[in-house]
Parts: sequence; C-alpha cells; structure tokens
Amino acid sequence: MPNVAPLILTTGEPAGIGPDLCIHLSDYLVHQPVVLCGDIELLRQRAQLLGKPVLFHHESEPIEDSRSLAVRHVSTISPVHCGCLNVENVPYVINMLSLAASDTLDGKYAGVITAPIHKGIICEAGGELASFKGHTEFFAQQTRVKLPVMVLGNKSLKVALLTTHLPLKAVANAINTRLLRDVLTIIHQDMQRYFTSGRFPKIGVCGLNPHAGESGHMGREEIEIINPTLDALRTSGLLVSEALPADTLFVEQQMKHYDIIVAMYHDQGLPVVKSQGFGECVNMTFGLPIVRTSVDHGTALSLAGTDNMDCGSLKCAIEYAKKMTRF
Amino acid sequence: MPNVAPLILTTGEPAGIGPDLCIHLSDYLVHQPVVLCGDIELLRQRAQLLGKPVLFHHESEPIEDSRSLAVRHVSTISPVHCGCLNVENVPYVINMLSLAASDTLDGKYAGVITAPIHKGIICEAGGELASFKGHTEFFAQQTRVKLPVMVLGNKSLKVALLTTHLPLKAVANAINTRLLRDVLTIIHQDMQRYFTSGRFPKIGVCGLNPHAGESGHMGREEIEIINPTLDALRTSGLLVSEALPADTLFVEQQMKHYDIIVAMYHDQGLPVVKSQGFGECVNMTFGLPIVRTSVDHGTALSLAGTDNMDCGSLKCAIEYAKKMTRF
Repeated sequence: MPNVAPLILTTGEPAGIGPDLCIHLSDYLVHQPVVLCGDIELLRQRAQLLGKPVLFHHESEPIEDSRSLAVRHVSTISPVHCGCLNVENVPYVINMLSLAASDTLDGKYAGVITAPIHKGIICEAGGELASFKGHTEFFAQQTRVKLPVMVLGNKSLKVALLTTHLPLKAVANAINTRLLRDVLTIIHQDMQRYFTSGRFPKIGVCGLNPHAGESGHMGREEIEIINPTLDALRTSGLLVSEALPADTLFVEQQMKHYDIIVAMYHDQGLPVVKSQGFGECVNMTFGLPIVRTSVDHGTALSLAGTDNMDCGSLKCAIEYAKKMTRF
Repeated sequence: MPNVAPLILTTGEPAGIGPDLCIHLSDYLVHQPVVLCGDIELLRQRAQLLGKPVLFHHESEPIEDSRSLAVRHVSTISPVHCGCLNVENVPYVINMLSLAASDTLDGKYAGVITAPIHKGIICEAGGELASFKGHTEFFAQQTRVKLPVMVLGNKSLKVALLTTHLPLKAVANAINTRLLRDVLTIIHQDMQRYFTSGRFPKIGVCGLNPHAGESGHMGREEIEIINPTLDALRTSGLLVSEALPADTLFVEQQMKHYDIIVAMYHDQGLPVVKSQGFGECVNMTFGLPIVRTSVDHGTALSLAGTDNMDCGSLKCAIEYAKKMTRF
C-alpha cells in the first residue's frame, strides 16, 4: 500500500545553509511529498535575501498556489543572521527535531529528512545539551533506541559503520561479539525492510586490520572475534561474508557481490563513499522505528545567504527517504 | 638529458601470473624500454602454454626479430607448474630481486618494476628469509635504506602511507614526531624528483582520528603530535596541510589542492585509491636511491596459465616508472 503521510524535512541550524538549500531546491520540492519544518518567516526572509520568489504556506492551511511549499511552523526565538550562530536559537533547533521525531512516530509523517545542525552551538547551551552528540543519537534517544546504526549511501554503494565517532586508538577494544551481532542483525533487518523487499541482503564485512589480519600476521581480532561471530550469524541464516581486506573490498568486481558493506570504523568506510562524489551522498540511520535520512555535510555557515552551494546531498536524502518509505 | 638505460621488470613468483602478464602484454612491451628479468625458458614455455607466439632473446645477444623481448636470464632451480608454489624456487625469486636491485644501483637499469611475489612461500624457505616482509622492505635493505615509504597511485590520485602493515590497535602508538617528519621529508623530496620537476609538492595530510579529532573531542594526537609537527615542517618550507578529516579530503573539490595525500594508516588511504579502478593502480616506493614501481595485486596462482587476467596494473607500473625516470 503506498504511503499517504508526507515526509518531514527539518531545515536545521537557522544561520546555516539548511533554509537556503530548501529555497534553491523549491522547483523540485514542490513536486515532492515533503513538508518543511522550521520558522516560516525565516524561510520567507531567506528567500527574499536570495532573490527567489518562493511561496510558503502553513501545512494546516489550504494551498492557494500550487507552487507553494508546505511548512510545519516552529518559531525561532531570536532574530537570525546568516552565518552567525546564536545560542538563543538552540531551543528552536531542538523543538524542530523533537516535533519531527514525535510526529513521525505517531504516523503523521512517513519519515524524517534532516538538513545540517551545528553540534558546537547546541553543546554551548549546556545542561542536558552539553553532551549533545548529533542527529543520530538524538533520534535514537527520542525513539528509545539504544543502538542506532550509521549508514552512508550514494548511487552505487552503501556503507554501514560498526563504530562511529571513536578516537582511532579506542576502535580495536570496542570490537566485540555483541556489538558485531547486534549491528549486523539491524543491518540485515533494515536492508530487507527498506531496500531488498524482504530478500536477505548480502553483507560484505571489512576486517579490522590491514589485509583482514593476513591469517593473524597483522592482528588477531579477525581470528578471535570477528570471523567466529560472522560464522555464527551465517549459521543463523544471515548472508554475511567473512572478514575481508578493506583495500580490495571496495573494488567494483568485489562490491558487486554485496548489497551493503560494513566498515569496522569511520575512516575505513567513509572516505571511499564520499570520494565517489560530493553532493551525491546521504547519511541514514538504521535501527530506528522511523525512517531517517540526512545530508552528509555541515552547516557551511559562510555560504548561508549565497547562491554558492551544492544541493545534491539534500536531494539525495529526499530520494533515499522516498525509496525507504515506498513513495 | 633523457635516460638511456632501460627499466628492468622482475617477473616474480614463477608459478603465479607474473610471467603470463608479460606475455599478454608483449605487443605493448616490445615498444617499451623494458628488459624482463626471469628464466627465459620459463617464459618460452608459458607463452607456448598460452598459445601466444612471443619471442624472447637474452639481453646480451643481438636482436634478430624486432618483435622479440629482451630477457635478463636467471635460472629457475626446479621445474615450474602453474599455480603450484615450490619452496625450491625461492632462491630463484630472491636472485632475481637481488640482481635487479644491484644492477639498478650500478646504473645498468634506470629503475625496477616488480611483478608479484608470494611472501608465504619465501618465509617458508626459513633462515634469514623466515621474516621476509615483501618487496618494499627487501629493496630498502638491498639499498641500505631504513625508511622506505609506500605510495599508491592511479591516474588521478597519489596516496602515501605513514604506517603500513601494522595491526590497527598498534597504529596510534606508532605515530610520532620523528616518523612524521622523516616520512613527510621523503615525500617532499621524491615528489619533486619524480613528479613536480623541482616545484615544491602540495601535501594533504589526513588526521589520525575521525574528523581529524574534531578539536580534541575524538582523540588528541592531532593536537599533541601531528599538527605541531606539520607546523614545524611548514616553517621549514614544506607545503603541508594541517591534519584534515580523511572522509572529506578525498573528495575531488578538496583533493585538487594537493599533489599527494598522506594517510596515517593502510585502510585509511588504500580503499579509496583502489576503489577508483582495479588494474589502474600502481604501488611505488619513495625514499630509495632507485626508482621502484610495482603492480598492486598478488600472484593470483589460480589464474596462472590462463587468459583470464587484468594486465592494467602492470602497464600502469611501467608507465609510472617511465615517468619517474623521464622516458
């Protein structure tokens, strides 16, 4: 059954390029099942600044012009100046994300797409927010999930991360049977749910060490932890590879055998997927009860209010969200 | 002044695809300033097995047919069967490499190109060879160099490695000021010598941690070791970047600012360069007194004696060696 609820797109940090991206993409967005989330006046002002005659209406109001974009309005707290972070507007950003999460959980929206936020300014707000880690962890908390899984995708490749934002020296100790089993099970389930229509996904798994340890000559985690866990998962039906050398796994002739690749850590997987094209990459979260995709770039404060930005990643995030929600 | 000495191409493990690659590439090789190094009878037998009418002559003999390939003959010790490693032929492989190194040091050859060898079988020979680590370390030892630097290249990108074949958990502790300074100085010198015609190369340096540590939130090596060393090198004239996030450094818009990228470890850099095309990648060694390039793949024992192989990497290694020696 096709989805009837629209997607919600949080416009993110108000002083960054999130609002601009929506305006630059208005001709595309007007044909998409997408409601913007943010301050409607901010969007109107930004459109004026950019010299773009884009129309916006409150989503609860009737559409008077078919070219108008629907907005779920959330009020900013303090005036917004392009490129100038303001801690007073942190509650605005948090309200926007909370509302998107709860209304999507309630079924009002089919999924969430996120424009960039600025972690630094949110942490500066202090209190509970002092340890704010990012969108992924925020949505996990809001949806009561303990283990969100970060996945980057482009047109030809999906890469999931076993560990994400750890110092490199902490990575080897973070690899354990339980984490591998839980993350791979989530990937197995969400790939079926979102991408392979129930067919069991073929999952290629990178080793931790160079050449996947080369039979123990360069590290023993593959022998002692990773391969035994992969063997057990295979026995229980998952289509997981053994631990494979990362330097050759991303070669086309190897990748074609897999629906998704699992990297053991951040810089083993992300440089490859991002190198294949800026503005063609999407960040998504597996393991949540809701669909969530995001741009793969930051707030680019210095570009806010200008024409000088690449809207490709946001478009990619919308297209992925549509695919994941069967639009 | 153009180089007059030819390049020497070691044909590598006799039971692997090294000899086959030379035969499949014979139409190309005959027009190259390249002498093959290996057993001439082995090459003739392999050509016959492959059904290719390739001619070979001893390099010291006059050429009777312009289509004939010159061979610096080294005798195998035991009969060779495709795909079957034989420890008795290990001294043959070592002789081939020693001869190529010493004759290149003496100026008889302009540089060395290496087809794949098999580390496992060489280690099995025992004695001094039990700890044989590979071509790179062998040539370093033969040319009395302590710090060879591994560099991978393709048509659009060069990636040097600060550390190479270490278990991941040993990487962070291996990063220190001296290693950074020495490796970056070698890269600075050899890039000028081989690729930028004396112009100082622009060197992009990856951080060790995700997002290059994000101001110390994800690791402090950038703050405590890497950036201070890069600052000092910059003061002494080198065009090195600060430590940059690896996941965005390989994006085209960033890479175009650099002549070469330095990765802190194996799987931070090699997956990107290899993912850009199998058979389009070359492995070279900086820091040696001689030019040395190599294929970036292994012996592919199961493919020896067949038509089913990609000669691209060997061709790429020859083209790089020609460029580096000004042919």
